[in-house]
Amino acid sequence: MDRGGVTYPEGFVASGINCGIKKGKNDLSLIFSESECVAAGTFTTNQFKSYSLLISLKNIENPIRAILINSGNANACNGKENLENSKKIIIKLSEILGIPSNSILFASTGIIGKPLPYEKIINSLPELVEKLSTFSHTEAAMGIMTTDRKIKEFHINTGIIGRKKEVVIGGMAKGAGMVNPNMATMLAFITTDAVIHKDALKMALKDAVDDSFNMINIDNDTSTNDMVVCLANGLARNRRIHPDTPEYEKFAESLKEVCRQLARKIAEDGEGSDKLIEVVVKGGWCKKDVRRVAKKVAGSNLVKSAIAGNWLNWGRIISAIGSTNARIDLKKIEISINGIKIYKGEPLNFPEKEVEESLKRKVVRIEIDLKRGKFETISWGCDLTEEYVRINRGETDDS
Amino acid sequence: MDRGGVTYPEGFVASGINCGIKKGKNDLSLIFSESECVAAGTFTTNQFKSYSLLISLKNIENPIRAILINSGNANACNGKENLENSKKIIIKLSEILGIPSNSILFASTGIIGKPLPYEKIINSLPELVEKLSTFSHTEAAMGIMTTDRKIKEFHINTGIIGRKKEVVIGGMAKGAGMVNPNMATMLAFITTDAVIHKDALKMALKDAVDDSFNMINIDNDTSTNDMVVCLANGLARNRRIHPDTPEYEKFAESLKEVCRQLARKIAEDGEGSDKLIEVVVKGGWCKKDVRRVAKKVAGSNLVKSAIAGNWLNWGRIISAIGSTNARIDLKKIEISINGIKIYKGEPLNFPEKEVEESLKRKVVRIEIDLKRGKFETISWGCDLTEEYVRINRGETDDS
Repeated sequence: MDRGGVTYPEGFVASGINCGIKKGKNDLSLIFSESECVAAGTFTTNQFKSYSLLISLKNIENPIRAILINSGNANACNGKENLENSKKIIIKLSEILGIPSNSILFASTGIIGKPLPYEKIINSLPELVEKLSTFSHTEAAMGIMTTDRKIKEFHINTGIIGRKKEVVIGGMAKGAGMVNPNMATMLAFITTDAVIHKDALKMALKDAVDDSFNMINIDNDTSTNDMVVCLANGLARNRRIHPDTPEYEKFAESLKEVCRQLARKIAEDGEGSDKLIEVVVKGGWCKKDVRRVAKKVAGSNLVKSAIAGNWLNWGRIISAIGSTNARIDLKKIEISINGIKIYKGEPLNFPEKEVEESLKRKVVRIEIDLKRGKFETISWGCDLTEEYVRINRGETDDS
Repeated sequence: MDRGGVTYPEGFVASGINCGIKKGKNDLSLIFSESECVAAGTFTTNQFKSYSLLISLKNIENPIRAILINSGNANACNGKENLENSKKIIIKLSEILGIPSNSILFASTGIIGKPLPYEKIINSLPELVEKLSTFSHTEAAMGIMTTDRKIKEFHINTGIIGRKKEVVIGGMAKGAGMVNPNMATMLAFITTDAVIHKDALKMALKDAVDDSFNMINIDNDTSTNDMVVCLANGLARNRRIHPDTPEYEKFAESLKEVCRQLARKIAEDGEGSDKLIEVVVKGGWCKKDVRRVAKKVAGSNLVKSAIAGNWLNWGRIISAIGSTNARIDLKKIEISINGIKIYKGEPLNFPEKEVEESLKRKVVRIEIDLKRGKFETISWGCDLTEEYVRINRGETDDS
């Protein structure tokens, strides 16, 4: 039992328990910092927002001490009395923890439109607080899962040395059921012991999310509950990080790596998926162009289902690329699958059997060079299987 | 054997045969008009365009006499020599028909990246021309099918009386395999005996396509081959139709009805689908808002797979609506499923069992009132089934 995930940084503890929303699985998690945190968050752009998320939106500018998360119920579109009940839960938690109620964030994930099991949650708060520990990060990561099959945690050392210790970052996430297009909930909670200016943290998080979680989504199709939050409690006692400094670059790169690793885990664990599809796009005229193409290819149902069947239908990749308005040199564009070049302005003679065989791998890598500039990016998707459809027909109890 | 489809209007004949691209199924079709036609077309916005489509794009401004269509091969991204071969096919056809080669349009649908079976097509042209008749419209409609399970034809009388006869419109279409998001090819060919100004025809077709075929697509995700063409040969001898006249309104409405019926048939016949999902959006602040919401809901994988499983997960509908930036009165918005109101600013008490039972119908109707204005529209999608995934894994030979 090591430190890791959200309790990897100094001064953070966590817990996860079953409060009775789901059968026999963790469904309630808590992250707590022993001192006040600077916080930054990116929240769903969906017009219907869960009541939990609305509370977090209101509190995110305050010094933050704790994050409460439940799974099994989205607390969205379920009637106004649930906002009142949510507030009562937060007040109760603040009393038990002895912190201001406006220093708590709240997140939910699960089915939309059902009353929040208010009593189950509120009655379990004492146990949840009692179980807080530096070793319970995985219990907490389990409490936020819905149809996820794997626990998603990651931590990293930044190389920034503070007066007390090296600055580190840790995090946990739950997958969008669907990943792409993403309308199931994606949650990520990241902690760090860095001393950092709030604006620097906001900027670093936005940039990291754009190059990670947003690369497994499509066109801002976010659910009612999507949320990525980063808390910095300053316990490493490093010199405060400001934008445009070498320390900022180090911190921002490490934060991006945490987000990318968590995003990759989400894609890998897409509902009913067997494979990870990694789409690298190079040679773009601008950042937008490469992001657009990468997301379009990784998100194409036709590409995803062909890859599920180990079917080398590369025309679908071409069609997906061309359907964007990204700048492309049509006469020079290059496409490789698993390292073998198959297209260069026109189809190449390539070993079809070998490429087809390589589609059976657990990670299928598609590389596209637009031949128009210097920008590049990476996006992840998963294959589209019959199992995916089975899950989303409603034949499993979780969602 | 009646007239119908593309040969319903005066002076049009058609044929469809097997030329050997596919096994035992029609794969080559021809539409021919006994006199010159004014033509209008909407073509794919995909940056990779099939060579057949490029020829049509070049000729569409000329007086048109014929349209040649093959299925089983997309004639796209397959190397430049295929452009030369395509031109030879068109020249040969023009010689047999005794018409200028620049009065012929060409369309293809099928797998991308394979050489066009040039000899099979060119050698079959004499038979194709020989079989032209007013009664072979269904043979022609069969020749453009790929994974379509049903023939798609429709015709209508416009009520506009010409000196020779009433103006009528007929058409045939093939479905996008996938319908939504549409990256498989969608083709539609529409004929009329109207006398109409070219600009009026263009305007009416654009408007009709926006309210029909484009409502079963998403975000201009068109394939390399998508094409909708309308030919008007003027044989009804009506007074020439100009924009902003009562005759124009009649013609435009009839044309839109033909397009809508064909679009509905395409959605109904989506690959592996069991049900038609009809999404009516009302109360929109503008046309764009209602179109956006309708397409988003009809195109949501989560909505589609829930409906496949007769699962009343209406939260997914809410989430899809909210993920658009359409203007919505969140406190008044109403949602009905199969005529039963389930949401009005918040969830209503409704007979859940009854609504769930109604999801088993072959047509599931979702009505959404945004409560912000007067605009409304309708979009169609199909449910997402395991069969869909099976087809797109490549376990059928057609695509």
